[in-house]
Amino acid sequence: MLSGNKSSNVVINDKSFNTETEPPQLLKQERENVPFTVRDITHYLNGSVEQTEILEYAMQRVERDPLFNNDAFYDLTKDEIRELCFKRVANLAKYLLDSRKDGTDFRRYFDAVSVADPAAVTRLGVYTGLFMNSIEGSGTPEQIKFWYSLGANEYKRFYGCFGMTELGHGSNVAGMETEAVFDSETDEFIINTPNLAATKWWIGGAAHSATHCVCFARMIIKGKDYGMKSFVVPLRDVDSFNLLPGIAIGDIGKKMGRDGVDNGWIQFTKVRIPRQFLLMRYTKVDRSGNVTEPPLNQLAYGALVSARVNIAVESFNTARRFITIAIRYAAIRRQFASVPGQPETKILDYPLHQRRLLPRLALTYAMNAVSMELRDNYDRINNSLLNVNQNDKAALKKAVNDTKEIFALSAGVKAFTTWATADIIDECRQACGGHGYSGYNGFGQGYADWAVQCTWDGDNNVLVLSMGRALIQAACDAKRSKPVGEPFEYLSRHGQLKSSKLGSRKIDSPEVIVEAWEAAAANALISSSEIYEEELAKVKGNVAQAMEAASQQRFESARIHTRLYHVTAFFNRIKNSSSSGIKPVLTDLAILFGLWAIEKDAALFLTSGFLSAQDIKNITKLVDVYNLKIRNYAIPLTDAFNLSDYYINSPIGNYDGDVYKNYFNKVVRRNPGYDAKAPYYESVAKPFIQRSDEPKLDLSVLDE
Amino acid sequence: MLSGNKSSNVVINDKSFNTETEPPQLLKQERENVPFTVRDITHYLNGSVEQTEILEYAMQRVERDPLFNNDAFYDLTKDEIRELCFKRVANLAKYLLDSRKDGTDFRRYFDAVSVADPAAVTRLGVYTGLFMNSIEGSGTPEQIKFWYSLGANEYKRFYGCFGMTELGHGSNVAGMETEAVFDSETDEFIINTPNLAATKWWIGGAAHSATHCVCFARMIIKGKDYGMKSFVVPLRDVDSFNLLPGIAIGDIGKKMGRDGVDNGWIQFTKVRIPRQFLLMRYTKVDRSGNVTEPPLNQLAYGALVSARVNIAVESFNTARRFITIAIRYAAIRRQFASVPGQPETKILDYPLHQRRLLPRLALTYAMNAVSMELRDNYDRINNSLLNVNQNDKAALKKAVNDTKEIFALSAGVKAFTTWATADIIDECRQACGGHGYSGYNGFGQGYADWAVQCTWDGDNNVLVLSMGRALIQAACDAKRSKPVGEPFEYLSRHGQLKSSKLGSRKIDSPEVIVEAWEAAAANALISSSEIYEEELAKVKGNVAQAMEAASQQRFESARIHTRLYHVTAFFNRIKNSSSSGIKPVLTDLAILFGLWAIEKDAALFLTSGFLSAQDIKNITKLVDVYNLKIRNYAIPLTDAFNLSDYYINSPIGNYDGDVYKNYFNKVVRRNPGYDAKAPYYESVAKPFIQRSDEPKLDLSVLDE
Ligand SMILES: Cc1cc2nc3c(=O)[nH]c(=O)nc-3n(C[C@H](O)[C@H](O)[C@H](O)COP(=O)(O)OP(=O)(O)OC[C@H]3O[C@@H](n4cnc5c(N)ncnc54)[C@H](O)[C@@H]3O)c2cc1C
Ligand SMILES: Cc1cc2nc3c(=O)[nH]c(=O)nc-3n(C[C@H](O)[C@H](O)[C@H](O)COP(=O)(O)OP(=O)(O)OC[C@H]3O[C@@H](n4cnc5c(N)ncnc54)[C@H](O)[C@@H]3O)c2cc1C
Repeated sequence: MLSGNKSSNVVINDKSFNTETEPPQLLKQERENVPFTVRDITHYLNGSVEQTEILEYAMQRVERDPLFNNDAFYDLTKDEIRELCFKRVANLAKYLLDSRKDGTDFRRYFDAVSVADPAAVTRLGVYTGLFMNSIEGSGTPEQIKFWYSLGANEYKRFYGCFGMTELGHGSNVAGMETEAVFDSETDEFIINTPNLAATKWWIGGAAHSATHCVCFARMIIKGKDYGMKSFVVPLRDVDSFNLLPGIAIGDIGKKMGRDGVDNGWIQFTKVRIPRQFLLMRYTKVDRSGNVTEPPLNQLAYGALVSARVNIAVESFNTARRFITIAIRYAAIRRQFASVPGQPETKILDYPLHQRRLLPRLALTYAMNAVSMELRDNYDRINNSLLNVNQNDKAALKKAVNDTKEIFALSAGVKAFTTWATADIIDECRQACGGHGYSGYNGFGQGYADWAVQCTWDGDNNVLVLSMGRALIQAACDAKRSKPVGEPFEYLSRHGQLKSSKLGSRKIDSPEVIVEAWEAAAANALISSSEIYEEELAKVKGNVAQAMEAASQQRFESARIHTRLYHVTAFFNRIKNSSSSGIKPVLTDLAILFGLWAIEKDAALFLTSGFLSAQDIKNITKLVDVYNLKIRNYAIPLTDAFNLSDYYINSPIGNYDGDVYKNYFNKVVRRNPGYDAKAPYYESVAKPFIQRSDEPKLDLSVLDE
Repeated sequence: MLSGNKSSNVVINDKSFNTETEPPQLLKQERENVPFTVRDITHYLNGSVEQTEILEYAMQRVERDPLFNNDAFYDLTKDEIRELCFKRVANLAKYLLDSRKDGTDFRRYFDAVSVADPAAVTRLGVYTGLFMNSIEGSGTPEQIKFWYSLGANEYKRFYGCFGMTELGHGSNVAGMETEAVFDSETDEFIINTPNLAATKWWIGGAAHSATHCVCFARMIIKGKDYGMKSFVVPLRDVDSFNLLPGIAIGDIGKKMGRDGVDNGWIQFTKVRIPRQFLLMRYTKVDRSGNVTEPPLNQLAYGALVSARVNIAVESFNTARRFITIAIRYAAIRRQFASVPGQPETKILDYPLHQRRLLPRLALTYAMNAVSMELRDNYDRINNSLLNVNQNDKAALKKAVNDTKEIFALSAGVKAFTTWATADIIDECRQACGGHGYSGYNGFGQGYADWAVQCTWDGDNNVLVLSMGRALIQAACDAKRSKPVGEPFEYLSRHGQLKSSKLGSRKIDSPEVIVEAWEAAAANALISSSEIYEEELAKVKGNVAQAMEAASQQRFESARIHTRLYHVTAFFNRIKNSSSSGIKPVLTDLAILFGLWAIEKDAALFLTSGFLSAQDIKNITKLVDVYNLKIRNYAIPLTDAFNLSDYYINSPIGNYDGDVYKNYFNKVVRRNPGYDAKAPYYESVAKPFIQRSDEPKLDLSVLDE
């Protein structure tokens, strides 16, 4: 087939190809002569061979489940999406129950479905995660047993939702206005929504699914306000599914994404619940209304940490999908001929395009390292917290400290990984040019579904500020040579790091990159703490005010510390990997990540004195050099993510690389039976196109 | 009404308010004691009192047009959206025709509709902009007359679309593969799609509307390939609206946004058109197939510049909507009490929140300045280009040079304003917390509609690289003291700027900020040109290769130069404003913009030596200070954008500030007739919720 554009004709192994026929050849080429075993990287990413197998099993079940077929998803209405989503929730719930029997980690199903249909994970996750974690984390053993006995843990004749947020209050949980007034006569709490702004809002599952709600309300007993506590409030009669008396629920309606979730609003009009529906693991209320407050209040928020950890994992899971699409496409897409008459250049061979994608590939791997580390730590800490003897003061204190630490760490990781994933989806879309804007290539829906991760389960900016507070305090301590927690250890070396310089060393080694980041971070954090202390002096020791004035410093401290954590976690994880064949390429990838991150934050390194302006210029060159190294293995490094075409769900990102045919076929399949005339041709288009001249009014007849 | 949360009770002028009742009071307060006339700023933004009036007239017509009512938009299917969009196109076309009669600028209607329904503007704009500009810019006077006579310019019995992009080629126009082979026997061109990848793709209007297409194809005459030319190709019979022989069209289907546009694909199978349908203003082909090529080829791309200028204006128009919503909401939303028991703090009073919104408010104003300047320049240059005597060589050269300059400038401005607007929409959404994710508050659809602006009409990265090439060349010239074009004038002062330092001066003055930016930009560009020349030496003078190697430097040069242009245009426009009362606040705003931009790019200023590390710390403080100044006028400064609630189309951003009531009412209105049971309750939900235990199989009967 002759093509008019000579530069679109390419010869591979003596055979001639054109724009239509060449693409699948290209990915084959990219997969030749790879000096490492792709499968080993998959195991590295998943943690072990066993984890890969468990995950693959879960992914296969979902992929083969006809309900999870996504071919027609694009054209569903909100109502249809909601219905389909519930069907998926029902199946997913069964998978979770199965996983209990065979002892596999149920989160693997969430890992799988979060790529295929994030709304389904949310819709069930609000129940299995937020609701159940509240029960299990804040209920007494008897209460847990009680709610289990109603079916809560079997997802049967029971559906839980999580009612914290109100129309007028979100991040500030302590400010919620829903009230729970104790009626000592009847031994009940009366749950009430005092004004419009106190309406529970955004509650996932409320509109269509939930029978019960964990409701956050301020507990008022004998006129005294004890602040926010959590109560289980029945919403619907499980048999008739009608709303119970005093419960008003409405549908939140259209959202930016995740329309499969039936978010609702709830108003309580003096709804009575037994006193025992207050979750009493910590705060206890007896028959006479006497209150016992726990020694350490923050423990009740454990459910939130678990959600954040899952979100960090989901950040990696989601980012890998989009970076795979964009890199595969870039290895095929040609645009502009560098030499006239020669084949056009694949966009992945343009230095700018490499800069857009390959450091983000490295970032995706870094997020894997960070989130896996966080998940492991959380599992450990959460287990010890749940099993700690409440009377063993030392053990309790340790468990609480660990929880605080992971609470802070998870805050920063949650915020910066979700932002990073949003950035990756968006940049990858743009890297695919116009085709990134097609509904069928997944970026639009992917972004819309993802965006909320930056807001819920702790608004990113609020999380970052709170982490920043902890960091400034740690920096203040370090400055005075007080001990600091393990994750902030480098701060105690700030004196020595201050004089650390690259000098004549090469920057592209793991040790030097880590040192550079530690030096820059220590410098920035110590400097931030100084600004904070200046502010503190100005406001005569008012910590809240000084912390507010140092907001930017808090934000930056958290940002920089989390970056450092990404760098170190990535190098550590490579070091600890048991598979030596993959270490060289992963190390290059981690170096690329570290250098790119330095370049982006050049001012930090100039300010700390670790790097000179000339060093920065060299780093810019080195980023190009490492991009070129990684470019050679870009396809195998995305293949290692191990996502089948079903999960990729983007014809320009399929494994076979037959971009144009796959994409064209998808568009034609989803828009079949084409009629050149629009359905509205007769009624709308024709009257406009064929309109006749406006009649000219003959006004002269009016002039007598 | 008593609220449980004491800190939610606020006393204003001795009256007591709560979260529900307080909001509208707050915006009233914000509008008191404003030391400038808001209306004057509106005129400043629009260019003059007259322009404000013209714009208001256009906006009112659209707002009052029942077809443009958006109340139900959220729940329409793609097909319904398409139909509604065509109705709107028909009305919009009539407005445009009216504007010819009353002599107003038709673009004011696009300004209005681009906020209310961006898809409608696109759907008509492809015709009135891209198609008509091609005819008028590339057609001979006779051809223009001919196509006018068919109704092209009356939008009657005619609908034009623009067929440049192909499935396999976008940015590289020269690489398109559609062929136009001249048949000298019949005096026709034969338009043909040689392979799948050559299918015309994304063509707006093709699927449902267009009768004619400006088709880009490589002209082949007597075996010689003359490269890309534009041809008018009839697609449908205007009476029957059936596709003409040889034309195959399909629907592109679902997109990330702008589903109102009927993008389609087109395949031509040896379609014959008269020779005269080649647009021959520049390249001419006579009856015998003799070709006359124009002296200056690039003139044919004028249509693209016009589109870019309009996009820059649209960037401002769009950004102002979202920044208004986020700032109004932030002036009302309270979250967390700084002092226990006191009213919670409005989020606009948090330093971090100010940093997120107020510099972006300033950026929005800067985009106004830049885009207005660009539009004025374009009008001037385009007029002289269209009217230039083709035989007056000097005038022609000047016109071409001016066009080249605006081509380059518009490239950078288009890229960085569209990216800025995407960032503003997204940051504003996050600034509204969860409510930013509600479909009814506009951010999701707004982002999805906007995103494509970074890709079409010149992919941003490709544009930036091409502008970067021009800048590196200018810097090379400046280094050798050769003359440089007017927009690069500061480069010729690079020697003097090299030693320029802040020293003991204050940074927060217009002159010093401009000097800082000029010094940093000159330093960065000269340094980039040196890197480029090193690369050039390495590859023995191969310019293309060296430019490729200096991609990052090109990118950064364009980015920095465009930033500088924003800074200077903003200050200039304030200086030239005739209204002195508004200058103080606008100057503060421009200073905030300049300082914030410096802080974000601190490394540039450290490297150039203009600022020290200590200066940067001071600037961080100054940004806080200027944020506080602007915070006082944030509401009036957004009111000045003059968008009615119709255009705001976001209940949390309404003028009256009654956030919770407006939003609640909207949600309830769009989700009426609520039934606690989902429509799929009986069929889907109940069988899951009420499922009985799985029957236990009695396998013992099988054991004999
Ligand atoms: C799709 C969706 C589903 C949800 N599902 C549930 C659910 O099932 N159950 C539930 O209880 N909730 C749910 N939520 C609510 C969610 O948890 C909240 O939206 C989130 O906690 C943020 O709170 P907010 O929206 O009130 O934002 P706000 O807290 O009001 O924040 C608004 C803005 O102010 C800023 N801000 C706030 N405080 C400060 C400060 N001190 N300093 C500086 N800046 C500040 C924030 O950064 C943010 O940008 C859901 C939300 C969404 C969008
Ligand atoms: C909704 C929509 C409507 C449209 N309407 C029309 C229409 O009506 N008529 C029409 O003709 N077209 C239309 N287009 C097409 C649009 O103009 C193209 O999408 C755009 O020109 C970009 O081209 P591309 O998609 O082929 O991207 P490509 O050019 O393939 O670019 C892909 C990626 O490669 C990068 N890249 C390309 N070249 C280089 C290089 N040399 N160096 C470094 N990086 C590079 C780009 O930055 C981009 O990220 C429309 C597109 C969309 C999405």
